[in-house]
Amino acid sequence: MSLQPLRDDLPRFLEPYLPQPSGSQAAKPFVTLTYAQSLDSRISKGKGIRTTISHAETKTMTHYLRYHHDGILIGSGTVLADDPGLNCKYGSEEGYSHSPRPIVLDSRQQWRFEGSKMKDLYLKSQGQAPIVVVSEEPREREKDVAYLLCPYLSSSRVDWKTLLKKLHDEFDIKSIMVEGGATVINDLLLKPALVDALIITIGSRFLGSSGVEVSPIQSVELEAVAWWNGTADAVLCAKLSGSK
Amino acid sequence: MSLQPLRDDLPRFLEPYLPQPSGSQAAKPFVTLTYAQSLDSRISKGKGIRTTISHAETKTMTHYLRYHHDGILIGSGTVLADDPGLNCKYGSEEGYSHSPRPIVLDSRQQWRFEGSKMKDLYLKSQGQAPIVVVSEEPREREKDVAYLLCPYLSSSRVDWKTLLKKLHDEFDIKSIMVEGGATVINDLLLKPALVDALIITIGSRFLGSSGVEVSPIQSVELEAVAWWNGTADAVLCAKLSGSK
Repeated sequence: MSLQPLRDDLPRFLEPYLPQPSGSQAAKPFVTLTYAQSLDSRISKGKGIRTTISHAETKTMTHYLRYHHDGILIGSGTVLADDPGLNCKYGSEEGYSHSPRPIVLDSRQQWRFEGSKMKDLYLKSQGQAPIVVVSEEPREREKDVAYLLCPYLSSSRVDWKTLLKKLHDEFDIKSIMVEGGATVINDLLLKPALVDALIITIGSRFLGSSGVEVSPIQSVELEAVAWWNGTADAVLCAKLSGSK
Repeated sequence: MSLQPLRDDLPRFLEPYLPQPSGSQAAKPFVTLTYAQSLDSRISKGKGIRTTISHAETKTMTHYLRYHHDGILIGSGTVLADDPGLNCKYGSEEGYSHSPRPIVLDSRQQWRFEGSKMKDLYLKSQGQAPIVVVSEEPREREKDVAYLLCPYLSSSRVDWKTLLKKLHDEFDIKSIMVEGGATVINDLLLKPALVDALIITIGSRFLGSSGVEVSPIQSVELEAVAWWNGTADAVLCAKLSGSK
């Protein structure tokens, strides 16, 4: 499925929140936390239910953001539930060379690249092969998958600081877009020292109280806030207060 | 405390969602459901905690909306927790004659006008005396309070259709702004036949998972969606799908 054209005013709106393209000497990757939510802060109607939240024009924005990042990270709950492709269709008339490297948090080694949409895209040269972040030596190594061993604080909470440093130093990943799911987002919203930009699409619907919710365990203040309005969605860009 | 001036572009943005000022022959009041929420769909940090969510300029918008309604309705949880004034400061240089009539859902007769901020404003001619909606004959009648006897489906869920008809027929209330709290909002979001407009302010902060949440028990679709951007907040105006 091809993308709608990018809305003219989006590049300028997003620019201050994007990773700087060159010359960064930072010791960690630039981290963009981004997701689409309903008005009632749900990112899906229920666990494992793929849910349309945003308009086609903000879907194009998501691919534009992917174009600007080296890596795209998701948690195991999301990869198992949604089987996402995670490639970049923006600019694909030049090939898919801007597809970010998928990074899958999978401490329990439950996910398999084999048979996934990600592998399908990779075999068609429309996406990259993933880095799978495991908490111990993989029981089985799949072809083309890179494994990154990293401490987890619990089965769903990775040691972010170590992970980001390893992605930077061992895989040369200078920028990461974190797309979810809720566990990962709620965890990172409380880490202003690690998150450089927050980009939230708000779709104009309610998904209801049984949906999968984003809400961190404590309050979070934002700064450098900017809003954009689409046909049906709003997009918020911001930095977490306390970030550098 | 005086209000900031109203942002120039708000009247035009809000106009399609406001009650029509004259000549309505409708059998029920025009109902505007309006509230301010955080990004994570919380309307306060916790039960009974007054929480700043929106910017001063959207606070002015709230008073501008009050200016356009005959009544302003809130649930007993909110009135007991917040002791709100509910008057209209917009246009107050002409006096407070545009303050809407407070309508308090209080099936259990727990709230007292005596000693409230609402009474204080009323005595200073800066607000109206309330209509209290009770489920049975009041045990005690306070001076200046009007009592409206109406069936409740449970202690917190009023029979909206009967209530709106009575407010219209017995009190000549042609338009009502419903400001909360969460119980009332979640209930009305599922009533497209009764709600004419939805106006939500989204503040750019997270209040956290222990906050008081708006999320209806099932999904809700919207139509006639429009967004406005403020300095820090976004405002969504819409109609509930399925409304007339």
